[in-house]
Amino acid sequence: MELFLKRQAKKAGLPPGSLVHVGTPKMDKVRINVTEYNESELREHVVEGADECLPEDRGIVTWIDVVGLHDTETIGKIGHNFGLHPLLVEDVLNTNQRAKIEEYEGRIFVVLKVYYIDKQTHDISAEQVSLMFNRDTVISFQEGDPDAFQSIRKRLMKTNGRLRSTGADYLAYSLIDTVVDHYFIALESLGGWIDSVEEELLFDPSMKTMQEIHRLRRAVLFLKKSVWPMRELAADLERSDNPVIRDATKLYLRDLTDHTVRLVEIIEAFRDMISGMQDIYLSSVSNRMNEVMKVLTIFASIFIPFTFIAGIYGMNFKYMPELEWRWSYPALWGVILVIGVCMLIYFKRKRWL
Amino acid sequence: MELFLKRQAKKAGLPPGSLVHVGTPKMDKVRINVTEYNESELREHVVEGADECLPEDRGIVTWIDVVGLHDTETIGKIGHNFGLHPLLVEDVLNTNQRAKIEEYEGRIFVVLKVYYIDKQTHDISAEQVSLMFNRDTVISFQEGDPDAFQSIRKRLMKTNGRLRSTGADYLAYSLIDTVVDHYFIALESLGGWIDSVEEELLFDPSMKTMQEIHRLRRAVLFLKKSVWPMRELAADLERSDNPVIRDATKLYLRDLTDHTVRLVEIIEAFRDMISGMQDIYLSSVSNRMNEVMKVLTIFASIFIPFTFIAGIYGMNFKYMPELEWRWSYPALWGVILVIGVCMLIYFKRKRWL
Amino acid sequence: MELFLKRQAKKAGLPPGSLVHVGTPKMDKVRINVTEYNESELREHVVEGADECLPEDRGIVTWIDVVGLHDTETIGKIGHNFGLHPLLVEDVLNTNQRAKIEEYEGRIFVVLKVYYIDKQTHDISAEQVSLMFNRDTVISFQEGDPDAFQSIRKRLMKTNGRLRSTGADYLAYSLIDTVVDHYFIALESLGGWIDSVEEELLFDPSMKTMQEIHRLRRAVLFLKKSVWPMRELAADLERSDNPVIRDATKLYLRDLTDHTVRLVEIIEAFRDMISGMQDIYLSSVSNRMNEVMKVLTIFASIFIPFTFIAGIYGMNFKYMPELEWRWSYPALWGVILVIGVCMLIYFKRKRWL
Amino acid sequence: MELFLKRQAKKAGLPPGSLVHVGTPKMDKVRINVTEYNESELREHVVEGADECLPEDRGIVTWIDVVGLHDTETIGKIGHNFGLHPLLVEDVLNTNQRAKIEEYEGRIFVVLKVYYIDKQTHDISAEQVSLMFNRDTVISFQEGDPDAFQSIRKRLMKTNGRLRSTGADYLAYSLIDTVVDHYFIALESLGGWIDSVEEELLFDPSMKTMQEIHRLRRAVLFLKKSVWPMRELAADLERSDNPVIRDATKLYLRDLTDHTVRLVEIIEAFRDMISGMQDIYLSSVSNRMNEVMKVLTIFASIFIPFTFIAGIYGMNFKYMPELEWRWSYPALWGVILVIGVCMLIYFKRKRWL
Amino acid sequence: MELFLKRQAKKAGLPPGSLVHVGTPKMDKVRINVTEYNESELREHVVEGADECLPEDRGIVTWIDVVGLHDTETIGKIGHNFGLHPLLVEDVLNTNQRAKIEEYEGRIFVVLKVYYIDKQTHDISAEQVSLMFNRDTVISFQEGDPDAFQSIRKRLMKTNGRLRSTGADYLAYSLIDTVVDHYFIALESLGGWIDSVEEELLFDPSMKTMQEIHRLRRAVLFLKKSVWPMRELAADLERSDNPVIRDATKLYLRDLTDHTVRLVEIIEAFRDMISGMQDIYLSSVSNRMNEVMKVLTIFASIFIPFTFIAGIYGMNFKYMPELEWRWSYPALWGVILVIGVCMLIYFKRKRWL
Repeated sequence: MELFLKRQAKKAGLPPGSLVHVGTPKMDKVRINVTEYNESELREHVVEGADECLPEDRGIVTWIDVVGLHDTETIGKIGHNFGLHPLLVEDVLNTNQRAKIEEYEGRIFVVLKVYYIDKQTHDISAEQVSLMFNRDTVISFQEGDPDAFQSIRKRLMKTNGRLRSTGADYLAYSLIDTVVDHYFIALESLGGWIDSVEEELLFDPSMKTMQEIHRLRRAVLFLKKSVWPMRELAADLERSDNPVIRDATKLYLRDLTDHTVRLVEIIEAFRDMISGMQDIYLSSVSNRMNEVMKVLTIFASIFIPFTFIAGIYGMNFKYMPELEWRWSYPALWGVILVIGVCMLIYFKRKRWL
Repeated sequence: MELFLKRQAKKAGLPPGSLVHVGTPKMDKVRINVTEYNESELREHVVEGADECLPEDRGIVTWIDVVGLHDTETIGKIGHNFGLHPLLVEDVLNTNQRAKIEEYEGRIFVVLKVYYIDKQTHDISAEQVSLMFNRDTVISFQEGDPDAFQSIRKRLMKTNGRLRSTGADYLAYSLIDTVVDHYFIALESLGGWIDSVEEELLFDPSMKTMQEIHRLRRAVLFLKKSVWPMRELAADLERSDNPVIRDATKLYLRDLTDHTVRLVEIIEAFRDMISGMQDIYLSSVSNRMNEVMKVLTIFASIFIPFTFIAGIYGMNFKYMPELEWRWSYPALWGVILVIGVCMLIYFKRKRWL
Repeated sequence: MELFLKRQAKKAGLPPGSLVHVGTPKMDKVRINVTEYNESELREHVVEGADECLPEDRGIVTWIDVVGLHDTETIGKIGHNFGLHPLLVEDVLNTNQRAKIEEYEGRIFVVLKVYYIDKQTHDISAEQVSLMFNRDTVISFQEGDPDAFQSIRKRLMKTNGRLRSTGADYLAYSLIDTVVDHYFIALESLGGWIDSVEEELLFDPSMKTMQEIHRLRRAVLFLKKSVWPMRELAADLERSDNPVIRDATKLYLRDLTDHTVRLVEIIEAFRDMISGMQDIYLSSVSNRMNEVMKVLTIFASIFIPFTFIAGIYGMNFKYMPELEWRWSYPALWGVILVIGVCMLIYFKRKRWL
Repeated sequence: MELFLKRQAKKAGLPPGSLVHVGTPKMDKVRINVTEYNESELREHVVEGADECLPEDRGIVTWIDVVGLHDTETIGKIGHNFGLHPLLVEDVLNTNQRAKIEEYEGRIFVVLKVYYIDKQTHDISAEQVSLMFNRDTVISFQEGDPDAFQSIRKRLMKTNGRLRSTGADYLAYSLIDTVVDHYFIALESLGGWIDSVEEELLFDPSMKTMQEIHRLRRAVLFLKKSVWPMRELAADLERSDNPVIRDATKLYLRDLTDHTVRLVEIIEAFRDMISGMQDIYLSSVSNRMNEVMKVLTIFASIFIPFTFIAGIYGMNFKYMPELEWRWSYPALWGVILVIGVCMLIYFKRKRWL
Repeated sequence: MELFLKRQAKKAGLPPGSLVHVGTPKMDKVRINVTEYNESELREHVVEGADECLPEDRGIVTWIDVVGLHDTETIGKIGHNFGLHPLLVEDVLNTNQRAKIEEYEGRIFVVLKVYYIDKQTHDISAEQVSLMFNRDTVISFQEGDPDAFQSIRKRLMKTNGRLRSTGADYLAYSLIDTVVDHYFIALESLGGWIDSVEEELLFDPSMKTMQEIHRLRRAVLFLKKSVWPMRELAADLERSDNPVIRDATKLYLRDLTDHTVRLVEIIEAFRDMISGMQDIYLSSVSNRMNEVMKVLTIFASIFIPFTFIAGIYGMNFKYMPELEWRWSYPALWGVILVIGVCMLIYFKRKRWL
């Protein structure tokens, strides 16, 4: 349940805009990485406190990456420095958000969810990422490790990359695109999981398989709940006519929308597959019960009449002529043999054997 | 059924606009709390009758909170004083309403539903809350205790809060937001309930579990029926261009819409989970029947042939050579042993053991 | 099937606009009630034939209520007198219509369905009601008794009622509202029925319960088919800018739409509940089969081995040392007792007892 | 499968617009009926070849009814004479089309499906009908007998009918309306079929019933696939502002739309009913298995312990004191009787008897 | 899983627009066929490298068909020569795309999926085809053999075909139409497969049938996922007002949309059918279990009482009067016969025989 609805008790009765961190702290201390770059140079440094993060206008792209959300005071100060509305800072801190985009004059605010699926245990973990960007600055807020944006950092190293020669909007796009890539990775693990459960289902289904299908179903349900808002977000971003987004970036946003549409389609296909697996499970259980019943019926139907016959000649009546006859005993075996063969043929005909 | 459709017999044949209280009276006497505040001062007092509630224009925000609906005359008089259309007063009194918003010139009328889920018995109780607000007055109508707006009263005490420095529209927003918060609390209890039923389901399912799932399903169905109109209401309020709502409040209404969208998503996820639990239940029943059948089949299939063999040598035929042999008896035990072991191997192979 | 699709054989091959009554005549003779009223006076009289029903313009509201549809000639004549298009008269006569609204210059034509559910037998009966109204005249067509508009007639008696002081559009609204009230009454009986079937389901389910659920399902299906068009109709009426509808009436039409939306929601909730009841039924059947199987398995598994043991010592072998021993018989009882107790413990452990 | 997708192998690799007849020829020779009429006169004659069908402008309505589609050359020539685009002629010939409407300047082209359900075998047969009409000419193409338009021909005979006094658009409307009437007839047979299967289901369900339900389901599925496009078609026709359609005809088209909406609703109700029947079937099977199990369990549980008791006293131990007692045998019967009665009471309590 | 989501590991961390081939290479070497034609002449030749593919303006239609995608450098060069945006070239290379259309000034870019179903093994294989066309050039990219466009090549040979006398837009339409034809062929195989599984289902269902149904379901799911984007694509193309598409071609695009709508309908009908087959399967399994149970119950219920009777007279009590009677033994047979006949009648009445 935790995944769907985090405890909000802390916030009950507080006015909107109260800065309270909803979620588990994943870092000891807030870490602030500042990266400044243009086509020719790139500077990275870790900043001590919120006071060193101030909006500047120097013709250079600045990316402020805040890792760790539990220090509400620092986050609040950064938000204040960059003119974020208290409600938005609250959204950054409350990791219970759904993905969304909000546009303001000269800036865009985005909340995203990143998912990781453990390849071994298939546990899902979620992290909330928020972005605020204008034409030359991107501020990103992460809950903590693992760093979702490592690949972007690597790409920024290359002097000749497109990333270095464009503005903050392209950086923001790249960050969002990376988050979408994490969904694809999560869906890939999920796909592998589905495959392995399906194999188990076809060759050796047990109650454990059913529980695994239930877990799968829940995971897909959970991802679905997150993927749909991503699609809306991407579509809104593509349609946006906010001047923060340069025309050259639009084409990339179209690509982003395409990716989120594919995410939705894959999720829906997974749902259908899993519901199909449940049907397979139920019919395999029915089939096995059928088989068990057949074995019981064959044994019981053959031997119960035999036992009856044997019982008859075990009776102690004084006047039972057959008991005295010379060939009674072998004849009885003959009769039993004939009956047995007839029944086997009957069961064969019914395709029970 | 009561939750879905209260008895309306009282109203049959009455013209629209008739003031009849549909619902159970939850108070002995109607209580009217009047709170007047601005940034510097705050006055609270309980008013005796409807005549003391009159619209005034004194540059101060007035909140009239009417608790108890059964005294239709008093309610009617208050409505009349503030110029409410009889149809709206009828909506206030008929606790059978769905959440809705109606806009008029210079005022907005809102009907809401508050839900409480008992943490022990998981019983749902509903209360209807109606609001009418213009730029400087909010009138709220509650059915009775518990007071849904206690947290707002506390926040009003603080002189430096946002609530004190803004108009009636922000107060109205805060009241609605409090109602939405009650939904989140209800969903949290529901989530805990789902978790406990699921645990029971996986470790010790019984017919009682199925009935519990049925109750869960009904509760979710019921909340769903109430949450959807809340979402429409919030969206309508956000989109409204009624001058009653100040621009500064708009941002908060957007936040409200976000919350109701999350409510809907959680409810839908709950629905899916519960239907998954039903499947789990059915397959666990099938599995257990399978196991029972296996035990029966193994016992019957092993011992029925043995009994037959014993029956054969219990027959009283005069001419049965085996009966005379010296080692017949131990040999028979040997035969039985061999057959038994073979069958056990067979069942092992079939994975029934 | 009758409820969904009445025999139309009579009409095959006839051109559109042919006046043929499709349905069962519910009256011996067509009865025409004419009510004329304004704020000060009210006249009611029964008119003999269609010729006495003519449109007049006397500054008074006229309500012509035609009860009984089988006399196609009279209906046709009335339609002609008031300038109804033959296609509309055909709609009045063909009780196979779905609820709909058609607007013309200076008049509105409405077809409605009224439903009654017998509280004892739970049989549904339907009646078609058509209305045509302009600014000062309402013509209503009913199939026959029971009179759906009795409550309106009573309200018209009161001189101080809103009904008497407004125009024909408010009368038409009141008639439609009365039809919607009949739906609520029908849903209430349906709700009571669901409750009683559910109780039976939880405490004593049988195949009869399943058939009752099937009947319920069909009834809900049938009402749903009628409620959806009612909602569309109400919404269309609310949105209509036909001058026939006075502004003062608009607010009431909004109320009407709200009611039909609630109807739809209740119907949908009923559908969900009934499908949940089916699942409960199936799982209770499975559970009972499980219990039957357990009893069989316990009996068979305990006594079949015992019978085998008894069979062994019933054999007539000459050389069976145990037969001669002094304490064989009591020992055998001991062995049986030990085995029995072990098995009971085993079954207890498996929670079969 | 044939019904859903006719073999198109013949057409593979051919360019669009190739005139190939897809379907089974239902006639030996193409027959062309030409009917010319106005208010005063009516001429019918059978024409030999395509060359005699030429567009003429003589102030008279001309209806050219082409029956039989396998003679692609003739069809092609007629199409050419009346200026039909090769793609449309291809649509006429390919009986694999879905219902559709295409509008051009001065003409409208319509493809329809007519369905017949055999009342005995419940087999569905489909025929494709295409219409092209302008202000004074209607060309209709049918696959063959039975003649779908017989009732229209009869109505044309009457000199005073509306059909004779209006233009080609009303004739086209009448033809389409006739096709819709055929759907109602088909749904009526389907309804009767559903009723008979349902009766069988409630009183004597067997595997055959299930297969019948499957057939029903398939039939409904098939009709649904055809009815939805009919609804779109009718709505498009109603909304069309093509001058080919006279204003006087518009009202009739509205009626047509109403009919197709009812078709859709009935089909959807049928679908729901059939799926309910499947549930009934499954639960009746479960019930009967339950009953079988009960009989088995009662017999086995009562007699297996008795057999054990009898087996005990059939043992040949030397020292069994009971064997010697005087009243052992009657006492044993007493014991058996007591056990038997106890068990019957137990089963009675469990409601298995 | 492979069909839904190809391994994208290669691409992780790469910037958008990176040219990486995602998929399995199906060719050794990229093959480039260039076809140039107008009404009078047709030239086909295989070109060596990308450098020979340059946009030219010679009043002739040029079709460049690139077969094989693994040589990213060549593809990249061709894309560069014709001014394709790197993102589009990336789409061409990433065979993980969904069908889509993107319009630019003076050109249209289309990605399609072709499906083949093996008639024997029912394996589905997919190939991605991309098209870029302007008024006189079409560039198509295929993954490899089989050549999806063979039929077009044949039609181009004919000097008098429509294809030769129109522009590149008609060629592009023809290529897309061919892809849609491949869907129909795939659906035909699927239909045949459904028919054969259904027959197996009705006459000899086994667990293998269920697995076959599961495979069918997955195949339909997979095709559905591809068909829906095709429909959107066709509708977008039809609605497009890009000057690249000549008016004369519009009519053909309408035809294309019709075809894709039919694809969607057939797929949906298949889905319904397959889910119906699953129900049939489950109920046939239940039925067979029922039959097995009946046989067991009949045998056990008849012979267990007989065995008990025989057991009684096998007891060794000293005082059992019946043992001494003269006609005990034949009387016993008589009793057994009577009981047996009674039970057979009872089972007959219950319709178990």
